[in-house]
Amino acid sequence: MGFPGAVAEREHADYAVVGAPLDVSTTFQPGARFGPEQIRRFAASYDDYDRRTDQQFSELGVHDAGDVRAWDDAPEYLEFLGGSLADLVRDDVTPLLLGGEHTVTAAGVRATDPDVLVVLDAHLDLREAYDGNPWSHAAVTRRALDGDPEDEPLATIDGIADRAVILGARTGSEAEWERAERDDVTVVPPEDVSEWTPDLAEESVYLSVDIDAADPSVAPGTGTMEPFGLSAREIRDVVRQVAPNAVGFDAVEVNDRDDGQAAALAGKLLKEFVFAHADPDH
Amino acid sequence: MGFPGAVAEREHADYAVVGAPLDVSTTFQPGARFGPEQIRRFAASYDDYDRRTDQQFSELGVHDAGDVRAWDDAPEYLEFLGGSLADLVRDDVTPLLLGGEHTVTAAGVRATDPDVLVVLDAHLDLREAYDGNPWSHAAVTRRALDGDPEDEPLATIDGIADRAVILGARTGSEAEWERAERDDVTVVPPEDVSEWTPDLAEESVYLSVDIDAADPSVAPGTGTMEPFGLSAREIRDVVRQVAPNAVGFDAVEVNDRDDGQAAALAGKLLKEFVFAHADPDH
Amino acid sequence: MGFPGAVAEREHADYAVVGAPLDVSTTFQPGARFGPEQIRRFAASYDDYDRRTDQQFSELGVHDAGDVRAWDDAPEYLEFLGGSLADLVRDDVTPLLLGGEHTVTAAGVRATDPDVLVVLDAHLDLREAYDGNPWSHAAVTRRALDGDPEDEPLATIDGIADRAVILGARTGSEAEWERAERDDVTVVPPEDVSEWTPDLAEESVYLSVDIDAADPSVAPGTGTMEPFGLSAREIRDVVRQVAPNAVGFDAVEVNDRDDGQAAALAGKLLKEFVFAHADPDH
Amino acid sequence: MGFPGAVAEREHADYAVVGAPLDVSTTFQPGARFGPEQIRRFAASYDDYDRRTDQQFSELGVHDAGDVRAWDDAPEYLEFLGGSLADLVRDDVTPLLLGGEHTVTAAGVRATDPDVLVVLDAHLDLREAYDGNPWSHAAVTRRALDGDPEDEPLATIDGIADRAVILGARTGSEAEWERAERDDVTVVPPEDVSEWTPDLAEESVYLSVDIDAADPSVAPGTGTMEPFGLSAREIRDVVRQVAPNAVGFDAVEVNDRDDGQAAALAGKLLKEFVFAHADPDH
Amino acid sequence: MGFPGAVAEREHADYAVVGAPLDVSTTFQPGARFGPEQIRRFAASYDDYDRRTDQQFSELGVHDAGDVRAWDDAPEYLEFLGGSLADLVRDDVTPLLLGGEHTVTAAGVRATDPDVLVVLDAHLDLREAYDGNPWSHAAVTRRALDGDPEDEPLATIDGIADRAVILGARTGSEAEWERAERDDVTVVPPEDVSEWTPDLAEESVYLSVDIDAADPSVAPGTGTMEPFGLSAREIRDVVRQVAPNAVGFDAVEVNDRDDGQAAALAGKLLKEFVFAHADPDH
Amino acid sequence: MGFPGAVAEREHADYAVVGAPLDVSTTFQPGARFGPEQIRRFAASYDDYDRRTDQQFSELGVHDAGDVRAWDDAPEYLEFLGGSLADLVRDDVTPLLLGGEHTVTAAGVRATDPDVLVVLDAHLDLREAYDGNPWSHAAVTRRALDGDPEDEPLATIDGIADRAVILGARTGSEAEWERAERDDVTVVPPEDVSEWTPDLAEESVYLSVDIDAADPSVAPGTGTMEPFGLSAREIRDVVRQVAPNAVGFDAVEVNDRDDGQAAALAGKLLKEFVFAHADPDH
Ligand SMILES: [Mn+2]
Ligand SMILES: [Mn+2]
Ligand SMILES: [Mn+2]
Ligand SMILES: [Mn+2]
Ligand SMILES: [Mn+2]
Ligand SMILES: [Mn+2]
Ligand SMILES: [Mn+2]
Ligand SMILES: [Mn+2]
Ligand SMILES: [Mn+2]
Ligand SMILES: [Mn+2]
Ligand SMILES: [Mn+2]
Ligand SMILES: [Mn+2]
Repeated sequence: MGFPGAVAEREHADYAVVGAPLDVSTTFQPGARFGPEQIRRFAASYDDYDRRTDQQFSELGVHDAGDVRAWDDAPEYLEFLGGSLADLVRDDVTPLLLGGEHTVTAAGVRATDPDVLVVLDAHLDLREAYDGNPWSHAAVTRRALDGDPEDEPLATIDGIADRAVILGARTGSEAEWERAERDDVTVVPPEDVSEWTPDLAEESVYLSVDIDAADPSVAPGTGTMEPFGLSAREIRDVVRQVAPNAVGFDAVEVNDRDDGQAAALAGKLLKEFVFAHADPDH
Repeated sequence: MGFPGAVAEREHADYAVVGAPLDVSTTFQPGARFGPEQIRRFAASYDDYDRRTDQQFSELGVHDAGDVRAWDDAPEYLEFLGGSLADLVRDDVTPLLLGGEHTVTAAGVRATDPDVLVVLDAHLDLREAYDGNPWSHAAVTRRALDGDPEDEPLATIDGIADRAVILGARTGSEAEWERAERDDVTVVPPEDVSEWTPDLAEESVYLSVDIDAADPSVAPGTGTMEPFGLSAREIRDVVRQVAPNAVGFDAVEVNDRDDGQAAALAGKLLKEFVFAHADPDH
Repeated sequence: MGFPGAVAEREHADYAVVGAPLDVSTTFQPGARFGPEQIRRFAASYDDYDRRTDQQFSELGVHDAGDVRAWDDAPEYLEFLGGSLADLVRDDVTPLLLGGEHTVTAAGVRATDPDVLVVLDAHLDLREAYDGNPWSHAAVTRRALDGDPEDEPLATIDGIADRAVILGARTGSEAEWERAERDDVTVVPPEDVSEWTPDLAEESVYLSVDIDAADPSVAPGTGTMEPFGLSAREIRDVVRQVAPNAVGFDAVEVNDRDDGQAAALAGKLLKEFVFAHADPDH
Repeated sequence: MGFPGAVAEREHADYAVVGAPLDVSTTFQPGARFGPEQIRRFAASYDDYDRRTDQQFSELGVHDAGDVRAWDDAPEYLEFLGGSLADLVRDDVTPLLLGGEHTVTAAGVRATDPDVLVVLDAHLDLREAYDGNPWSHAAVTRRALDGDPEDEPLATIDGIADRAVILGARTGSEAEWERAERDDVTVVPPEDVSEWTPDLAEESVYLSVDIDAADPSVAPGTGTMEPFGLSAREIRDVVRQVAPNAVGFDAVEVNDRDDGQAAALAGKLLKEFVFAHADPDH
Repeated sequence: MGFPGAVAEREHADYAVVGAPLDVSTTFQPGARFGPEQIRRFAASYDDYDRRTDQQFSELGVHDAGDVRAWDDAPEYLEFLGGSLADLVRDDVTPLLLGGEHTVTAAGVRATDPDVLVVLDAHLDLREAYDGNPWSHAAVTRRALDGDPEDEPLATIDGIADRAVILGARTGSEAEWERAERDDVTVVPPEDVSEWTPDLAEESVYLSVDIDAADPSVAPGTGTMEPFGLSAREIRDVVRQVAPNAVGFDAVEVNDRDDGQAAALAGKLLKEFVFAHADPDH
Repeated sequence: MGFPGAVAEREHADYAVVGAPLDVSTTFQPGARFGPEQIRRFAASYDDYDRRTDQQFSELGVHDAGDVRAWDDAPEYLEFLGGSLADLVRDDVTPLLLGGEHTVTAAGVRATDPDVLVVLDAHLDLREAYDGNPWSHAAVTRRALDGDPEDEPLATIDGIADRAVILGARTGSEAEWERAERDDVTVVPPEDVSEWTPDLAEESVYLSVDIDAADPSVAPGTGTMEPFGLSAREIRDVVRQVAPNAVGFDAVEVNDRDDGQAAALAGKLLKEFVFAHADPDH
């Protein structure tokens, strides 16, 4: 069951939905492996037509490439997934990744090599490693900035972001907050997101939505709920603003442990991304 | 199990709760058939007394007429249900309909023949037909405005609204948005609802609450969640403002697929409607 | 499984988490007995470090004393629980009570004998009795103000609050609203909570969070959802402001009937309380 | 929503369904208060006609008397409930009680004063008291045999069984097993139930089905699952055999914490009871 | 996401999985529309290899043709679906239909025109019509035997079964039981299914598994649970015995309202069918 | 919350409950990490007293050692866990391991070095590796027989079983079935388990219960349901028979995705194991 409206063939596609059901390092509530399936399912009832941009989703060249089946060796999987995404990028297809745990963003960044990583997340994800694992979801923004760990580098793809903007972040370890004070990181607390506007100029952006950026009332079906988060509209407005500069997008950390709220939001945001990216003047 | 506090006998009633568990055209998540039961159940813990209007619900003449059992022929059912509601209206009893899918609003409008249909809904519901079905929930506001389809008219009751105000609408097909531009339709997007005030003068109103007008965080238990919706308080304030002019009320599209949030809200709104209707000067 | 980060031994503790799984008078949805367990479980993914106050939770002297197993004689249980809490207070340990139904607050108030009871609650809880039961959750704030019922006094502990501030209250019986008009009660409706600031001077406070103060979208897993409630941030801000004056804290009425939202919020509020209490200058 | 097919008026009834949603002493998983509602709901899809006895349920004079609303003082409630049931018995109406916790059987036995209590139960329920409570569900069979506790007798009704047969029992305290060895108790372990035949002669019987007699696979929605229990058919066959001698029936300990299995079984057993009782020669 | 192991291309296929998510006439618990998706999902963990027949499922030429999207006009849908299945049959591909409500079997029978319909079902499904609807799931076996209703015939396909064997049936209306006594119907009650052996000689069979044939403990996720049903092994043994003669297969009435048990069983039975059909000598 | 009745101190213990919430290689439905918590929770309602052996569980010297917190490097974790278990064994304490995924059995076998591994399992678990992972749950019985993989050996503990008896197995890859034909493996299919009696003489046994050995109706809350499994009583009888020879026990693959059935069974089997082990003459 492909993403609704993703009716383009691969060879004519401008966008490609790719499921990445990795679910090995989830710290608390597992189930991110069912994210791609849930997101596709709960997008079933959305209208094809978008009033704001006066576009039909099904006419925007979105292809659903299915899932890249995951196994439990994260670095190996990231390499493989990153390779698939790089193939898309080479053909000028913008990847729309559906996680899976946040770790999969590493593959997206590798493949798109953006100037900036804009990430919506309750967490800084700036750890050097978590429980000794440098490829944990809790270290993914660090990986995107600082690259491979010494002892477990990926082999073939090596895109990296020059800086990161983390929107909605409200928690992290002391060490993460220290890393966040370096020049290449901007943290926008949840209370300030509604007033944030991007200052991107010509920079290319990879946009990653960790669904736990949202308040748990908005997206309870995620691995680690963190109270005091963003409203759905706040996230949407960030997506609309950033999309025109974006070279890649993902929505991650959705699981099947709520009544569909997290998945419904993630699928909607994917559509908002495509509408705004396809019509940047709106 | 009647609606809590609905203790009036039919012959002394000013209001009548009527369950209408129709659930045939639901596009995505079914279960609207359990709406009336869920709403009654989750209203069990509400206080009888309303501080704002200084009234006891149980003293306001609300009768619970039970459910009008549904079957799978929607037009037939609407005729039958509309007849029951017309009987109430004839006796000056204000109907309080609990859906079931939104389609049942057609019966409410037929029976009350209002000047205006005020509808809270994420969707325009202005389709000519959906999957060939003119009696789909997705066409109900169109039916209320434009009347019966040529080939499948209802036989005996024919009330209709002169105009419709759709509050909280955020999605529709291109054709629906075009129909919405005609003079007899006003669309208030979710962002503007909190500032909306009714301009109803002497007009009579039928007030329909499709629970999906609310944000999915507020009412996840509904057939087609649509993000970026209304808060519970925004809906409540519309109900309070419109109730004094109302000749009928419904709350629809509640199902049993959440933890009671949608039903709890719908039952509360019914009570707010009655309190405001019974004491219009407040 | 102790509360995450509550690693202090009893003899070196400044705070003690105490589970109080009483669940006998819950009017509607039972399950408050699983509150302590749920809250501990959903606190598992929170960072130890708090950026705002620059403190580690695990360094603040929090001990987890486990649960005081409940049985179905509420007054007997309250005496026993109150005794346990009084032991803590005697040793200058601030009790952090996890309910269980709201009734357990009576034990907290007995043990800490505060000047003021600040309670976040959708309900006034000012009944003389509920269904003839003076020790119902719906009468707990009344008990805290007016003391024991004539025929069923507790024997050994008798702390009481001189006044009560009820934040977020939006419903009650007519008699409760009348009682609320007396000088010793302040009611702050949900719409005004964000602007409320405590006027506590030197007064000692017992802070009780009935999770149903939150909007049902925020905390669906509670015994009696009441729409139109507080946001998580509004509750958090009250906790932060009141904590410096507090001699005791509880979070009650969390059950296991949602997807963890209510428990996640309650656990987070407990941590916010400790951070703010330990660093009152922040 | 009455029990499906229970269409007789009270004055022409031979049977009366009575809901008794008591839920105070449930030791583990609460929710028995929702038993009557769940059982009526899940009986909705059963055929009216019974092939075995060639009878229509709706023609057998079953009245649904609704629920006797419960509060949290069990002995008071039992008196009140017992009085209601005694009224039925006086009019030659056989009570069909839907629990609620097992405690409500005490009211059924009081009202019908049977020679024998036949009870299907995983537990002996022969405690003198549980946590000091002689009116706990875990003491109900003891109460039915040995009558009121000294300090908390019921006032007005006092039927009692001369002996008890406990089918499917597989657990109890040591003291319960000792009480079970007295002459007035027969215990049939689960493994022997399929071969058991009643030896009742002229004795009148009150038949109580604690749904936890069934294996947890058959009825997970109950307060205290106990593995290694009965199949649905084994329970059905007991019901069919005992019904002809019965003066009362109940199905108890059903809650709302499964997907309807426990409720579906309880409703079916009620129907089997009526069919067999109405046509004892089959 | 195709059925696991269904890796054959359409043009080389011997079997084709076809989802038929019709869900309009479900009397009680809706959700059969999610059956195909649930069944594919819960088949994910099954081994490809079958020890009994020493075959790999993925080598048996099974193609997954996806779903034939449903709408709410059942006769129209049946025609369309039947046409799709007839195309398969014409190419010697055995259809493996996944419901959806039982009504879809009508399309399977039309397309395959079998001598015998062997159906596992709790219900006779022999009604002339249900609530006036001759295309209700409760009338599907009647349709398969007696053909179209006078006023609503299907237009283009008209296969029919000469006789029906209904295994596990335990309920029906009086009229259905009478129809069942005619020569062309054999009813095998649940208690006798384990001893039943087919007497099919050269007859071709369409095998339909209504998952409610199973006991509710085995398959709670179905529209109308009926206690006292078959074990999973009893159903499996029927499937194995009948498959060699079969020209078509379906598994229907699975919904998403349990924890996957019904779907897991249905997917396994599909595999058992294919293994037994492909290796009839086992 | 310790295992109910596990009240012995470590230094006086004969048995120790150890939670091992590893959950990384689960192929399908994750959540085994919540197994230890669920099992302890659902054991809360079991009687302390066992009639069959006339023993109180709380008098049998069972200590609850809590959980050995897991991380996502399975071999590292197994070493650490194995070390903890070896400490117990050295002190003549019989380990009672609660999984977590089946992989943790490897640690139990290492620590106890049994002659025979008796395992109840739907699956053979005899793979050389799964998705390249030799420490997958699907390879655990192979590890117990054939020891460490060449490239990823555990360092410090190296117990191994001389042979394995796999009861209830009904599926595996072709290679697994071939491995199962070697002399050191006995496979007892589900249909034959009820007649199986151990032939253990003086051999020491490690007994592992993969809860998926049970039929999905009995234990739906497990990672990979496999239909046609064992009844709860069949599993219980194996446990009783094997316990007297056992040097270790585990119950694994329980998750939180059902209504407690799997956990309730696992907790009961642990108690049955202890009762039978402590009183081998029964
Ligand atoms: Mn993240
Ligand atoms: Mn995050
Ligand atoms: Mn609508
Ligand atoms: Mn809508
Ligand atoms: Mn309260
Ligand atoms: Mn409250
Ligand atoms: Mn009982
Ligand atoms: Mn029992
Ligand atoms: Mn059927
Ligand atoms: Mn059926
Ligand atoms: Mn295993
Ligand atoms: Mn297994």
